Amino acid sequence: MPILPPGRGPGGVEVFRSVEQLFRPRSIAIVGASESGAGGWPRAIFGNLAHAGFPVPVYLINPRRDRLWDRDVYPSFASLPEPVDLALTIIPAESVVDALAEGHANGLKAALVFAARFGEGGDEAGGARAQALAELCDEGLRVCGPNCMGALALPESHLFYPAERVRALPRGGVGVVFQSGGTFQYWLGQGAVRGLGFSYAVSSGNELDLDVADYIAFLVDDPGTRVIACMLEGIRRPEAFMAAAARALAAAKPIVVVKTGASERGRSATESHTGAVAGDDDIFNAVCDRYGIVRCHGLDDLIETALMFSTVRLPRGPRVAFAGYSGGATGLFLDYASEVGLPVAELSGETKAAIAPLLDRGLKPSNPLDGGAGLAGRPQDFKEICKAIAEDPGVDILSMQGQLPAQGGERGDPETFAAASRGAASVVAHGRMGQNVTDAGRAFQTAAGVPFLQGLPETVRSLKALGSYAERRRRGVPAERGPAAPLSGPVAQLLATANVPEPGGGFAATAADAAGLADEIGYPVALKIVSPQAVHKTEIGGVVLGLGDAGSVVRAADGMQARLREAEPGAQLDGFLVQEMTDGLEMFVGLRDDPQFGPFIVAGLGGVHVEALGDLAFRLLPIDETEAREMLDSLRGRVLLGPYRGRAARDVDALVRAMLAAGEVYSGVRDRFADIEINPLTVLAEGEGVRAVDIRETPRR
Amino acid sequence: MPILPPGRGPGGVEVFRSVEQLFRPRSIAIVGASESGAGGWPRAIFGNLAHAGFPVPVYLINPRRDRLWDRDVYPSFASLPEPVDLALTIIPAESVVDALAEGHANGLKAALVFAARFGEGGDEAGGARAQALAELCDEGLRVCGPNCMGALALPESHLFYPAERVRALPRGGVGVVFQSGGTFQYWLGQGAVRGLGFSYAVSSGNELDLDVADYIAFLVDDPGTRVIACMLEGIRRPEAFMAAAARALAAAKPIVVVKTGASERGRSATESHTGAVAGDDDIFNAVCDRYGIVRCHGLDDLIETALMFSTVRLPRGPRVAFAGYSGGATGLFLDYASEVGLPVAELSGETKAAIAPLLDRGLKPSNPLDGGAGLAGRPQDFKEICKAIAEDPGVDILSMQGQLPAQGGERGDPETFAAASRGAASVVAHGRMGQNVTDAGRAFQTAAGVPFLQGLPETVRSLKALGSYAERRRRGVPAERGPAAPLSGPVAQLLATANVPEPGGGFAATAADAAGLADEIGYPVALKIVSPQAVHKTEIGGVVLGLGDAGSVVRAADGMQARLREAEPGAQLDGFLVQEMTDGLEMFVGLRDDPQFGPFIVAGLGGVHVEALGDLAFRLLPIDETEAREMLDSLRGRVLLGPYRGRAARDVDALVRAMLAAGEVYSGVRDRFADIEINPLTVLAEGEGVRAVDIRETPRR
Repeated sequence: MPILPPGRGPGGVEVFRSVEQLFRPRSIAIVGASESGAGGWPRAIFGNLAHAGFPVPVYLINPRRDRLWDRDVYPSFASLPEPVDLALTIIPAESVVDALAEGHANGLKAALVFAARFGEGGDEAGGARAQALAELCDEGLRVCGPNCMGALALPESHLFYPAERVRALPRGGVGVVFQSGGTFQYWLGQGAVRGLGFSYAVSSGNELDLDVADYIAFLVDDPGTRVIACMLEGIRRPEAFMAAAARALAAAKPIVVVKTGASERGRSATESHTGAVAGDDDIFNAVCDRYGIVRCHGLDDLIETALMFSTVRLPRGPRVAFAGYSGGATGLFLDYASEVGLPVAELSGETKAAIAPLLDRGLKPSNPLDGGAGLAGRPQDFKEICKAIAEDPGVDILSMQGQLPAQGGERGDPETFAAASRGAASVVAHGRMGQNVTDAGRAFQTAAGVPFLQGLPETVRSLKALGSYAERRRRGVPAERGPAAPLSGPVAQLLATANVPEPGGGFAATAADAAGLADEIGYPVALKIVSPQAVHKTEIGGVVLGLGDAGSVVRAADGMQARLREAEPGAQLDGFLVQEMTDGLEMFVGLRDDPQFGPFIVAGLGGVHVEALGDLAFRLLPIDETEAREMLDSLRGRVLLGPYRGRAARDVDALVRAMLAAGEVYSGVRDRFADIEINPLTVLAEGEGVRAVDIRETPRR
Repeated sequence: MPILPPGRGPGGVEVFRSVEQLFRPRSIAIVGASESGAGGWPRAIFGNLAHAGFPVPVYLINPRRDRLWDRDVYPSFASLPEPVDLALTIIPAESVVDALAEGHANGLKAALVFAARFGEGGDEAGGARAQALAELCDEGLRVCGPNCMGALALPESHLFYPAERVRALPRGGVGVVFQSGGTFQYWLGQGAVRGLGFSYAVSSGNELDLDVADYIAFLVDDPGTRVIACMLEGIRRPEAFMAAAARALAAAKPIVVVKTGASERGRSATESHTGAVAGDDDIFNAVCDRYGIVRCHGLDDLIETALMFSTVRLPRGPRVAFAGYSGGATGLFLDYASEVGLPVAELSGETKAAIAPLLDRGLKPSNPLDGGAGLAGRPQDFKEICKAIAEDPGVDILSMQGQLPAQGGERGDPETFAAASRGAASVVAHGRMGQNVTDAGRAFQTAAGVPFLQGLPETVRSLKALGSYAERRRRGVPAERGPAAPLSGPVAQLLATANVPEPGGGFAATAADAAGLADEIGYPVALKIVSPQAVHKTEIGGVVLGLGDAGSVVRAADGMQARLREAEPGAQLDGFLVQEMTDGLEMFVGLRDDPQFGPFIVAGLGGVHVEALGDLAFRLLPIDETEAREMLDSLRGRVLLGPYRGRAARDVDALVRAMLAAGEVYSGVRDRFADIEINPLTVLAEGEGVRAVDIRETPRR
């Protein structure tokens, strides 16, 4: 699975299908037009087109009618006065393929298919319908759905959705792709309540043809779209999805996503740890990490995060200041910040001196800032405080306490927020809880020019996403790479060449040879007898650990030999194994291909309990040094890599180099091996490197 | 720190101070009454009393005024026509103590003190004021605050709060105690929007005298209070708090809590793992577990949970069914359920058969249930589906999709929900996202008689709390126990007597004795030489592991002796250590006194990395078998206790017995030892017990 240049498939073919005819058709047919049929959907959609003043010609198709809504009704596409670009297809599943085939033969370019029962339940008839429809798509027809709930193109006033409610959706910079039809319109409506405005929105349904990658690519190219919000259940074309995400990152258009399926486990039926520990969700998170996709915990978070990204400019860094007039809120902020790893800014002495006189008596300047209940009644002071914080060079993002007014004319001046947002920091407002939002509230938010996030946990998660996305943008879009050159030879040798050696050791025929070998390896060493008669080595003292010099090795070898002869007079002595003693932290490094998203690396605490501990970090390959270090930093057990309970720090630099090298080696042997894992990869004290104590490769079948 | 009977201190003294005079005074004085002074607070509070029609006599005190608001103003308590029960004290901190001392000398029983600067910033003058005020309290004056924002007694129409807004708060079953004054009224207001009604509510401030334990005890006794909602920063009197919580649990009045400080680490400066791993927050969670206190993640969750508990009856079990008409929601539900460990009910065949015909075409009955988008338009079918599910014997709790109408007259019938709630299951409604709630919505919710929870993560967390609370109620209030009888003798011996033995082993002077000892211990054993000259035992092969019979022990001992003599001709041989070999899972069990909440137990994965892994469960002592098993079940590493990658299951029963025994032993030696920890406590294969490989006790200083 080579990584392709963004938007191009093998041979340079564009991987994205055009969505143009769906969102921007020059003419439309409603297939299945009837007064009250299909649950009233044809009428509702026609009503929306009429409400927009029919921006493009609209034709009605129904072989069983002649006139409807004061218009001619045509029996077929062939009988229309002109070919149409888009068919809004509101007929039973059984009739869809024939109708669209006739349309495609008569110049139809795209279709929106509402009907379900195209195999999503696993039934045979539905599967056959899906297959027939897919063949039409292969011939060039673009299809949205089936089993979708419609599409909206607000700049063109196209509201292909069977309800009047969508007419109230405001225009704005948020593009939307939802695989879940049932949640699509509800989320849009709730987003509008909070002040979101939309460019294009689609319920993508079964994605038999057009899929989320196509829609994202379209939204990236649309100059009016600034943020892309998605609800996803699965990814049909992982490569195209990643290519679209790379394009979005390059264009600085954040993709914010709710994805279900976090509770499902990995599907690999495999003996390897790497396969067993890698759930689909872990890999999807690795995809998000690579392409700066912001994964949200739920539908409400998706609104907060979309609202934030559609309003604030990207910050220069991740450090957050939090200012308000509620002591309880500062305590909660610290808890949530610690929970998600939000960097809390340190205010400069200058800033502290500037704001101290503006606080309630007895309170001290700090971050998070509680200015006192009295400050709520002194908006001018609060504004000056926030302006000072927003200019502090140690503050990248400022979150100001702020509640939207329910009625116009309530106290509060949007300029309080606008003034701070003209400073150097990126500024948001936070409400301590969810609240009703009214027209007056939305107007206030627009005038303030900052997003009013609701709920402290939601705010903190959004701020974390803001800093992380900006950081990913600074690092740039991950470099695309062609397939790696194949590497020949044993994996252990390739790793050793790349400075990931196995522990030193070897076979020695005599006690003297064993001592010589130990001199080469370096002390301490372990010595083990090799004899057909010494199966249970320990019973005859056939294993001695921690030998510190050549003399000890000779004495131990002689002693073993003597005990062997004593226990078994005719025993045959083959010789001795001499092995380097490794005393370090046991880590786990695994490399494998995800069936969807391609090669990945996983690292964490090693040993036999690796799955049970589950202290692991996943990234798509290739990784760079920064990413390797981030992986280690994300482990609960990361403290074990530093100085710990009197022990020296581990050789983290060598571990990072080993992770990079293992990734390179895997890229070169992927054609031969499905899986490489090193467990344990023992990390010695600083400066002493790592040892690949146990390397296990799984050949491809 | 003996555990006292609920509500009684040493000698049977009631530990709760009376809140009666604060919430139900028979007469009131406003101290510091003035037209515009103190930020207008005296006027605002007087306005609230006037609005209620002065349910009890109200007097004004201010030595610098004669008349105000058409009333006489008195210079002091002494000059009042009658002694008053409660003083609403709205004067600067510097004047509070003198004023209240004069009041107390003239019959004053309680005071609400708004002023801050009573030492909360750590200043000396404030500390002295607090000390003086505390002395007044010792003499019998009850004080709410200082640094509080007021108190509300809705049944008595007492609104001791300096803003008109609180007049709109509806009466109901939720009692409220907030230590955070700045969040108090805002939370009440938002709760009212969602449909909460309140009985008594207090901003408890610094809790110099009356504290959260006192308020909870009052609310438990109040027949109108059904749920107690708290926002806490710290617990002043842990024993009283636990006694109040036990009383609330006995009365089936759930305490729902937001507590800040989760990000703070434990304060124990200790060498022991147990002290190092036990954060204050872990112990507070253990307190919550013991007393069925529901800990919420934030202020919005506090509303959902209070709304739920104030509306639904307790379920007979924890199994949840989830029914709606949105496919996206079922996927999210499963993710969130898996996240919090919510038990998902299995529908019976009978239920499935009953509901199948009512679903949209092509959809199958299951839990969670997606009935299809069409079902949203068939409320009668949805009602029948939910009624059937609510009668399924495998369903304890039913969560129905439901959105509150914004305007009266919108489609939707409260009877849809009311009908299901008359079944056997406890019923709630869930909205997929937060929404604006209007008068019409609240009326609908009241008519439906079920709580409309908002947001799927919030709903799932609330449902988890509902099942857990009901389970804790079924188990009953934890038995109170007097102090344990002291146990004498070494801890290891006490543990061994309680069936938590150390690995077998001992000292033997000769090879023959070693073999005899090994026969007693059982095989395999390890043998170690004991000699002043054999400091580095391994160099002379002085450690042999896994000896399988007496002959091997003799041969190994003889060999060691020979090698010792060879290496050091004049060496002295003292003898041999013979030790049982233990091959099992290394667990960690620690016992210690929390400085606030008393003795606790912690258990988790053992070894040197115990803190870094952080896979630990905490409970207050004593625990019973159910709790011990719950502790183990809560570990990420719990799979290691079962059959795992081809290895037999561990002796979990013996581990559970060992945890109980360790708790008993610790109770008996707490006077001597601050801390006991067993690390590792090695758990052998099923039926083979456990071994306390390393026991470490820390004497009290």
